Amino acid sequence: MELDNIKITYIGGGSRAWARKMMCDLALNGVIGGEVRLYDIDVPAAQDNQVIGELIESSGKGRSHWKYKVVSDLGAALDGADFVLCSILPGTFDEMASDVHEPNGYGLYQSVGDTVGPGGILRAMRTVPIYEGFAAQIKAHCPNAFVINFTNPMSLCTATLYDVFPQVKAFGCCHEVFGTQEFLARVAEEMLGFTNVERHEIKVDVLGVNHFTWFTSAECRGVDLFPVYREYIRKHMWKGNRTDGDVMSSKEYVKMDLFMRYGQIAAAGDRHLAEFVNNAWYLDSPELVEEWGFVLTDVDWRRRDRAEKVKKTRALVNGEEQVEVNPSGEEFMSLILALCGKKDCVSNVNLLNSGLVAWASDANVIETNAVFEYGKITPLKCRPLNKDVELLVSRVARQQDNLLRGIRARDMNSVFDTFMAEPLCSKLTLKEGKALFEKMVKNTEKYLDGWPVEIRKVTNCMGY
Amino acid sequence: MELDNIKITYIGGGSRAWARKMMCDLALNGVIGGEVRLYDIDVPAAQDNQVIGELIESSGKGRSHWKYKVVSDLGAALDGADFVLCSILPGTFDEMASDVHEPNGYGLYQSVGDTVGPGGILRAMRTVPIYEGFAAQIKAHCPNAFVINFTNPMSLCTATLYDVFPQVKAFGCCHEVFGTQEFLARVAEEMLGFTNVERHEIKVDVLGVNHFTWFTSAECRGVDLFPVYREYIRKHMWKGNRTDGDVMSSKEYVKMDLFMRYGQIAAAGDRHLAEFVNNAWYLDSPELVEEWGFVLTDVDWRRRDRAEKVKKTRALVNGEEQVEVNPSGEEFMSLILALCGKKDCVSNVNLLNSGLVAWASDANVIETNAVFEYGKITPLKCRPLNKDVELLVSRVARQQDNLLRGIRARDMNSVFDTFMAEPLCSKLTLKEGKALFEKMVKNTEKYLDGWPVEIRKVTNCMGY
Amino acid sequence: MELDNIKITYIGGGSRAWARKMMCDLALNGVIGGEVRLYDIDVPAAQDNQVIGELIESSGKGRSHWKYKVVSDLGAALDGADFVLCSILPGTFDEMASDVHEPNGYGLYQSVGDTVGPGGILRAMRTVPIYEGFAAQIKAHCPNAFVINFTNPMSLCTATLYDVFPQVKAFGCCHEVFGTQEFLARVAEEMLGFTNVERHEIKVDVLGVNHFTWFTSAECRGVDLFPVYREYIRKHMWKGNRTDGDVMSSKEYVKMDLFMRYGQIAAAGDRHLAEFVNNAWYLDSPELVEEWGFVLTDVDWRRRDRAEKVKKTRALVNGEEQVEVNPSGEEFMSLILALCGKKDCVSNVNLLNSGLVAWASDANVIETNAVFEYGKITPLKCRPLNKDVELLVSRVARQQDNLLRGIRARDMNSVFDTFMAEPLCSKLTLKEGKALFEKMVKNTEKYLDGWPVEIRKVTNCMGY
Amino acid sequence: MELDNIKITYIGGGSRAWARKMMCDLALNGVIGGEVRLYDIDVPAAQDNQVIGELIESSGKGRSHWKYKVVSDLGAALDGADFVLCSILPGTFDEMASDVHEPNGYGLYQSVGDTVGPGGILRAMRTVPIYEGFAAQIKAHCPNAFVINFTNPMSLCTATLYDVFPQVKAFGCCHEVFGTQEFLARVAEEMLGFTNVERHEIKVDVLGVNHFTWFTSAECRGVDLFPVYREYIRKHMWKGNRTDGDVMSSKEYVKMDLFMRYGQIAAAGDRHLAEFVNNAWYLDSPELVEEWGFVLTDVDWRRRDRAEKVKKTRALVNGEEQVEVNPSGEEFMSLILALCGKKDCVSNVNLLNSGLVAWASDANVIETNAVFEYGKITPLKCRPLNKDVELLVSRVARQQDNLLRGIRARDMNSVFDTFMAEPLCSKLTLKEGKALFEKMVKNTEKYLDGWPVEIRKVTNCMGY
Repeated sequence: MELDNIKITYIGGGSRAWARKMMCDLALNGVIGGEVRLYDIDVPAAQDNQVIGELIESSGKGRSHWKYKVVSDLGAALDGADFVLCSILPGTFDEMASDVHEPNGYGLYQSVGDTVGPGGILRAMRTVPIYEGFAAQIKAHCPNAFVINFTNPMSLCTATLYDVFPQVKAFGCCHEVFGTQEFLARVAEEMLGFTNVERHEIKVDVLGVNHFTWFTSAECRGVDLFPVYREYIRKHMWKGNRTDGDVMSSKEYVKMDLFMRYGQIAAAGDRHLAEFVNNAWYLDSPELVEEWGFVLTDVDWRRRDRAEKVKKTRALVNGEEQVEVNPSGEEFMSLILALCGKKDCVSNVNLLNSGLVAWASDANVIETNAVFEYGKITPLKCRPLNKDVELLVSRVARQQDNLLRGIRARDMNSVFDTFMAEPLCSKLTLKEGKALFEKMVKNTEKYLDGWPVEIRKVTNCMGY
Repeated sequence: MELDNIKITYIGGGSRAWARKMMCDLALNGVIGGEVRLYDIDVPAAQDNQVIGELIESSGKGRSHWKYKVVSDLGAALDGADFVLCSILPGTFDEMASDVHEPNGYGLYQSVGDTVGPGGILRAMRTVPIYEGFAAQIKAHCPNAFVINFTNPMSLCTATLYDVFPQVKAFGCCHEVFGTQEFLARVAEEMLGFTNVERHEIKVDVLGVNHFTWFTSAECRGVDLFPVYREYIRKHMWKGNRTDGDVMSSKEYVKMDLFMRYGQIAAAGDRHLAEFVNNAWYLDSPELVEEWGFVLTDVDWRRRDRAEKVKKTRALVNGEEQVEVNPSGEEFMSLILALCGKKDCVSNVNLLNSGLVAWASDANVIETNAVFEYGKITPLKCRPLNKDVELLVSRVARQQDNLLRGIRARDMNSVFDTFMAEPLCSKLTLKEGKALFEKMVKNTEKYLDGWPVEIRKVTNCMGY
Repeated sequence: MELDNIKITYIGGGSRAWARKMMCDLALNGVIGGEVRLYDIDVPAAQDNQVIGELIESSGKGRSHWKYKVVSDLGAALDGADFVLCSILPGTFDEMASDVHEPNGYGLYQSVGDTVGPGGILRAMRTVPIYEGFAAQIKAHCPNAFVINFTNPMSLCTATLYDVFPQVKAFGCCHEVFGTQEFLARVAEEMLGFTNVERHEIKVDVLGVNHFTWFTSAECRGVDLFPVYREYIRKHMWKGNRTDGDVMSSKEYVKMDLFMRYGQIAAAGDRHLAEFVNNAWYLDSPELVEEWGFVLTDVDWRRRDRAEKVKKTRALVNGEEQVEVNPSGEEFMSLILALCGKKDCVSNVNLLNSGLVAWASDANVIETNAVFEYGKITPLKCRPLNKDVELLVSRVARQQDNLLRGIRARDMNSVFDTFMAEPLCSKLTLKEGKALFEKMVKNTEKYLDGWPVEIRKVTNCMGY
Repeated sequence: MELDNIKITYIGGGSRAWARKMMCDLALNGVIGGEVRLYDIDVPAAQDNQVIGELIESSGKGRSHWKYKVVSDLGAALDGADFVLCSILPGTFDEMASDVHEPNGYGLYQSVGDTVGPGGILRAMRTVPIYEGFAAQIKAHCPNAFVINFTNPMSLCTATLYDVFPQVKAFGCCHEVFGTQEFLARVAEEMLGFTNVERHEIKVDVLGVNHFTWFTSAECRGVDLFPVYREYIRKHMWKGNRTDGDVMSSKEYVKMDLFMRYGQIAAAGDRHLAEFVNNAWYLDSPELVEEWGFVLTDVDWRRRDRAEKVKKTRALVNGEEQVEVNPSGEEFMSLILALCGKKDCVSNVNLLNSGLVAWASDANVIETNAVFEYGKITPLKCRPLNKDVELLVSRVARQQDNLLRGIRARDMNSVFDTFMAEPLCSKLTLKEGKALFEKMVKNTEKYLDGWPVEIRKVTNCMGY
């Protein structure tokens, strides 16, 4: 890799905001430059991104130089790439609305709906086939590229790349654990009297699957944070009425509950964590969700949010607004620089298990720490999950393993088996489960071209 | 072992009927004879069994000779034994009533309640410590004896023996799969026109955990029964109203449903099978249970049944009734004879996993086929579970593994974690779960001597 | 399978004697009949076998009826077969003479030379590619057939079938352990005073790789033979001069030495056993071989033996001699009958490891016991090797695993690495090793068509 | 840990030179200070070290302050220690002379003789029992200390600590791979034209067992060194006469040969590497050793070298010479500082396998990279060994595993089995092997107190 001629392929990005963040970080890095190929099935969106990229370049605020060009053929976009970044929306918000809200009619609530649970499964049915295609093209056009995935369901997208093209140098990048590090930094300040604790000072062992990650150790300036965190929870969450929103400026009840019961630190946003256990625990009803202090993200909100972002993009493209060039706070730029030979770093990352942990199959993608160095990524053998946590996490890993197998084989009956075994579906009777699953499949039907028509319903089922 | 001087220790047997069956089989075997030591904490019950044993001996209907004696010290009872048979009731029907019925108040129904689910967990908390004691005494007094367990929870009792005394020659003996073989024999007769199919002609690969066992292959007279069974189900269960009791003399809806959905044959009674999956599937309400054609066994029924058996025993002991000496139909006698050097046989049995399957830990006890030969038992490497079945069964195995660890460590919080992860508890909110668990622990408290007082409640929990 | 219309394909058999044995057993079995397709690249040899088969059929001494026909196209020969028997000589005695005797010039002696050691490796280089072809044809023409291999190197031939066609129902059949059972029967008679002990009464657990198999338990009529065998050895082998041929009518010094040192029973002929350990142990010189009481089988002897057999065949074909129809004493007929639904049996067999033992890879073929039943073969989980034995056997398994990989990849450098790591090559300096290997490759060159010309020598080597 | 009150226990150090290096590094580190307890069974040697330590302290050249004190009771020396450093000579040079030279009479030559081979085995028989004692005392007196082992046999000493006290925070520290990094730095300069390449710029994945470690990747300034190294070897080692010492200032023939044949980089001194393969390869005779360009280290040389060091020590203690305070170039100081919270670092280290690699048992100690951070060491999952290398290395791991088991059980027969299976013993006949082993055991007898007298010879052996 020539540092001033790096080739980056960016797949997706119609969501606009994220593409802009990336382009700012690229401009500001000061070490590498080159060419960014923008590929999106929504070509106008890609074109907008090109315009904005050029505005950033011409703003004079960057420290590196990049050319941006829209490439409408995926093969051409990938040809000889050094890095491939994937960040797509599989389907539209219409399908996502079905993923998230169709289950509501059965008393099933999802706070995100893009990773596990009924929504996660249907989303995977749309996404895995798309990633099969990406993997084949990457194999053909840039087998040595580092492929960085940002799309959810993170684990399954990344696992698909490996399943189709085992030599792929892919990893999934997710900032979800950073929030828990920030939270622990505040805990350390309050309980230990430390000042100005930064996220990077919270040293952790990370293990789990994406969005259901756990810190198996956490230290700050040499102090073990486990007993500190326990005291903090006793002071706040357990003092008086847990549901009194006043006791803490920021509620993190789900992760605190999981820590107190399981003894290791659940490390993702509460909206994500709640989706990995039986729905009766935190998602039994909108009232219970409120009691636990987190929110159900409505897809209509996402639509409005997207409309805002598109409006903002239009304003930038039309020159009505100035592009600001600020660092995003995301970690991917540091990782890319480490892979280009600058400053090694350790970061959490989603990688093929391949023997790292025994509670997942070799084909599972798990999240853990890795060292990023010039041209390579080496996972660390983190402190193990304790057995009670392993019970929860291994169940998730097995679900994902079976789901990937079922989707790859286009075996609707097997996918339904996995659906019924999801923790978030634990309330469903078989009759309800079948009706819900078939309705959700119907709603996303146009993205299921590769599935034989006759198996678009569950056939081996129950005589209902 | 001298065939005419075999020493058998029988632990338990106060349940009377089972002891009588065993003594009949011993009398009729015609190959081995010797001495039976009867040990029960209910000494009068043991004494009754001795009287009945002697009546059988003096009836002249036997073909082997046995001396029966009550031994009130366990060590003395075990000393130098060749075989140890364990069949105990841990606690009384009062505790069992709590196991089975206390959860009813939370909408949780159990059809048996002695293996898994809330009832199975509490029963295990009483039973595992008793088996720890048995294992220590066996190690001290008869380390070379074959130990045959009949007590539930089967897997955990047997696993406890191995955990305490790794060299123990223990196995668990359960006739549950025979019923499914009988059922398949009828299926073969009806669908294939075979006549007089006997149970032993249904050749099967068996894999799973006790009461949640699966046939991964089934053949009869060279014909693969899988497609035959599928046709049978289409003909009966799926024709017209599934719940019409008239279509079949014997309903087996749960196992048929599991076969149609999972593609391998669930092989235990429906009452047991239903307890290994989310309660919403088959046990959501008494009405749903009825719809699926099986029953919830009430502990009051057990009390009445026991009273009948005690009455029968009294009548035999008092000479008001004649002892009948008939073969029991159980398999344990054939297994003992094979271990004594007569006619090798293959039978399903509960054994330490120890590398046989990857979906369970080495410490799990699993059920599979084994060859019984002179002085040894060798498990077979059966056809594997398919992946969708493995998803269900591995979850059960992991629950049992974690439960055993938690009980052995007297770690109430860990046991509660396992409790909340039980499929039969999948409906429970955390608040409900904590309340139910603490009540059930309270109900069985007098059998929890070894647990530190301060941990008789769940301490690390939820701020409730 | 229809019992009177079984289709058997017999590949090879030019060695004559073995084919005749098989045809006698087929004629005498009394249960199955049908058609035997004779395929051999030596067509006249196959034709002779057909004539002899027909003579057996017309002799009236058989109890089953078979048609014999030569089929010169392998695909046609395999089409729809129920059983495939493979027994070939890879190459000619010229190549075998090189395998066995070329190493003599370097002080390396081989007592057989067809399984491991320099001879075994070169033979594998000829044989594995042939078996790749068989596997492809079996997959195309009779994927459900049981494939019984008799060719050496047994493990690698069978492993090749699985590697190319993972669903193949193949197993390797070898009578080598029977000899040790016979020997132990004599030991039991002498030391225990038993009379008329038959081979089948020696109950054993078998584990290892073909020709380096071990009994991890051995019992006779309920008596553990391990201490008995130890006494026997002290009495005979260790009394006075071990090398005095008079003390025992049958010398078995190698296996007795291995038992005394390793504590489990090496169970193959001494000529085979000696080849699996460093050549200095038993094969250091012809004198040492004599001291250990076994022989180096000369390939010239094989040539003469073959000539005798051909002469005998000619005499039978020409009607100068009468065909005798006697049972062969081999076990394959019992196994075939068990697979056809008659009398289940347990026998040692060579099968894919696939998780049975941890000391071999999943792709290794190991030898162990299996139950043969109607349409299926189920391996038993035998008592494990003790650790000192495992050290020896695992080394062999790893050699075979690496050799198969190297040959399948046509990677001459890797095969040379394996060659240098063979126990029988442990004396060789690198310079000698390279010279010997290259000469042996040259000698067998015409069977190495598939290997790129440029890699017919070791290129990455030592600067010599 | 308080940085200015660190407690270090130094076990051993009578070898003088090494203790001085350590004390210099401690003095110069500038971050931590505290107390060093000197424990040695040779108390005067420890006292000398104390004097020298005080001289360093009073020299004013240090940047940290340390108190040195001799503690003659091991428990007292360990009490509350933060770090324990072990560097002992098990036995005297008399036993080492037997280890190294007794085998010469059988044509076996050893270039070091302290790790594997006949010498390594006998040394392990003396050392493992000593380390059992260390482990017990560490468990009792400083269970949370980091224990750094420097004694050979490195793997077995470290493995013993874990086997006796599984929670021990032990690792083995060896600078052997640094030499190969230095060598590759020179290769990079010559072949790539780089200037001033430092050892740390050679980025490697390390995997193997101590002294038989391999680089599974090696890069310098972003360039893959594998093809570069290949070219270098072709240029030097293979050009003209390999044995012409003039072509290279530094000969590294053994490692270059291993690279060319095996495709990954053997990374230890040639004297060590040569001992892990059959003795015929590089150690067949003193002439062959010379041809391969390395040397046989004579124990007499070690005696003279020791005498020099003792003389030097006396001179320093007596004030005849000035103590120089220079950095040692060893890495242990960086590791200690990282563990104390200063600058994280990645280094090769010897750690319990515990699932990292499949070619070794969980109980094996392997050498690989790890991240050193505040209070913890996390191994990296390095690029795997290729299969041909794994064949060599796994054999070594299995030998060590079996040897440790045998010594821990004081099972002389099992140790002899391992002895005979050592690559360096591959030439030995059984008669020779037995005679040599028994002689070597005799020579080291006084260190075998724990072994039952009757098993001081090989009893189950061969009738010789």
